Amino acid sequence: MKKHNFGAGPSILPQEVFEQSAQACLEYNGIGLSILEISHRSKEFTDVLDESISLIKELLNVPDDYSILFLQGGANMQFNMVPYNILNEDETANFVETGVWATRAEAESRLYGKTKIIASSKESNFNYIPKNFEVDEDALYLHLTSNNTIYGTEFFEDKQYPIPVICDMSSDIFSRPVDVSKYHIIYAGAQKNLGCAGITLVIIKNEWLGRAKRPKSKMWDYEIFAKNNSLYNTPPVFAIYTCLLTLRWLKKLGGLAEMEKRNIAKSTLLYNEIDRNLLFKGHAVEEDRSRMNINFITTNPEDEVAFLEFVKPYNIHGIKGYRTVGGFRASCYNALPIESVQVLVEAMQAFEKSKNA
Amino acid sequence: MKKHNFGAGPSILPQEVFEQSAQACLEYNGIGLSILEISHRSKEFTDVLDESISLIKELLNVPDDYSILFLQGGANMQFNMVPYNILNEDETANFVETGVWATRAEAESRLYGKTKIIASSKESNFNYIPKNFEVDEDALYLHLTSNNTIYGTEFFEDKQYPIPVICDMSSDIFSRPVDVSKYHIIYAGAQKNLGCAGITLVIIKNEWLGRAKRPKSKMWDYEIFAKNNSLYNTPPVFAIYTCLLTLRWLKKLGGLAEMEKRNIAKSTLLYNEIDRNLLFKGHAVEEDRSRMNINFITTNPEDEVAFLEFVKPYNIHGIKGYRTVGGFRASCYNALPIESVQVLVEAMQAFEKSKNA
Repeated sequence: MKKHNFGAGPSILPQEVFEQSAQACLEYNGIGLSILEISHRSKEFTDVLDESISLIKELLNVPDDYSILFLQGGANMQFNMVPYNILNEDETANFVETGVWATRAEAESRLYGKTKIIASSKESNFNYIPKNFEVDEDALYLHLTSNNTIYGTEFFEDKQYPIPVICDMSSDIFSRPVDVSKYHIIYAGAQKNLGCAGITLVIIKNEWLGRAKRPKSKMWDYEIFAKNNSLYNTPPVFAIYTCLLTLRWLKKLGGLAEMEKRNIAKSTLLYNEIDRNLLFKGHAVEEDRSRMNINFITTNPEDEVAFLEFVKPYNIHGIKGYRTVGGFRASCYNALPIESVQVLVEAMQAFEKSKNA
Repeated sequence: MKKHNFGAGPSILPQEVFEQSAQACLEYNGIGLSILEISHRSKEFTDVLDESISLIKELLNVPDDYSILFLQGGANMQFNMVPYNILNEDETANFVETGVWATRAEAESRLYGKTKIIASSKESNFNYIPKNFEVDEDALYLHLTSNNTIYGTEFFEDKQYPIPVICDMSSDIFSRPVDVSKYHIIYAGAQKNLGCAGITLVIIKNEWLGRAKRPKSKMWDYEIFAKNNSLYNTPPVFAIYTCLLTLRWLKKLGGLAEMEKRNIAKSTLLYNEIDRNLLFKGHAVEEDRSRMNINFITTNPEDEVAFLEFVKPYNIHGIKGYRTVGGFRASCYNALPIESVQVLVEAMQAFEKSKNA
């Protein structure tokens, strides 16, 4: 029996993606070859790449003056590639520090230019998204993290700022419609909502290709990858194929508006139970609650281990919280069915009954 | 029916690797989860990683003072990471230019220090491996490419040089026993003999971790990956799993001595036919012929298109040569069965008969 996988990432993908990936490992599209042995220069693979890019453009409604790149190394690589490609030594980047990933992005940027953290929620263990901060209008760009996996905070509005915005959307991309035109760069590791681990999506406004003036390594240069349609070197063929399968599934289900509706339904169901059930309480402040990563603790610290034990017969997997927050984290990415959330809510209610018995 | 896949990479893997990968996409080891959705921090995955590292050490007989790293970005990324991590600005690296990949490695190194090409076979379209060159004894290291996929040249001896040696073994690693102690760094993209595309192996002598003094990005720092057992960020879980499956297959078959025997048998069979059959001739000089990539042309240029057409009913795939060399390239990596080579030889003989008829 399949588990209810609430893991924070690499995380659950649609069941049909597992099945189609498996089939492709045996034989891809009836061509007598496995997906693992086809050339990245073959028509089969360039079709996979082109369809993936075209679906990303369609689903996110990406304006024409943007490039879609597939890179390796996850968001961590982008913490570095963004300033390496964009920020000149005498320029400043602004950061809103909403968690560990934002902190890492800021730290890496110091290698290339000036940085300034203009707002932070560190003082309260990142349980909210700072608002009403002053953007440094002389800065080159503002860096944001739209969803914070560890703390379970998220913002949902694509705001207009006085300077260009770069956003790490690793853990909530494709979970709702996004106004891409509000961002100069969006980047995302695939392993939450897009595909398996090992591939990273970068959406970049073309006018910023080749922006920073330093001499660049070809492998770390957005412009090289844009010119070569992400085929400067051998890309991770299989990982990109899992993205294509997931994108097709997204489109078939009705796209991002439908996905947002489902994600609201799932997260509301679980947050309602957290708020109702006196044994539990949430970590993030209500207005900034993430739909992707739902963090909660037991009111009574002694119940924590007991609840982890209690859910085992329910086939619930991956709800142990990150070590710096503790408690539980139920990640409810796109592919997690609402039935899994229902089972978790059922377990929380049964746990409550068992304590009152 | 499966094709005889002579593709240069991504390339054929053992049939059981395809089957076991497919099974793992559906469900990994009976745990109720797909390999694509397990956490990189799970016991399941750290076991995969540890067993992979341990098999690499065993198969290659890696001395204790080396670290085994799994990185992303292929050999192209290493063209850059090697000098970034090792070469200080005032130091010189020596290069033997045996093809496009060596040229790229040298070009990237200029971003970080001084470089010198001490020998090259460029003047004869890289159809041999330069020998008897003078190594610059004041240089920091000598960079070699052990097998040249495009031109079909390879060297088989792990020579002692007066300075440390760094070797790109992307396309022949695990094809023969190697004396790792003769190299300070060995690196290899996985997608020929080790696993699917999307993962790169680096074997590095510990004394060189943290060598170059420049401030480094964490994602581009060998030392960070060594300290974190390649888990500084989310690794490509599935791609590493395909490496483990291939390594297990290698061990089961008898390790690298057995693999070398098989590779000699396969390549001898094909080279003998190339030498015997007057319709064909090889590209590389005899003493430097690669066992991995066997490049040949038709004696009569007009036969080239005809032969490509002729082999189609034989289910032969991927023998079209690289555009700068032309003709044919039959890549005979570890996983290619000798039966596939026999079929190609049969096709060459039938082609000869058809011309004489």
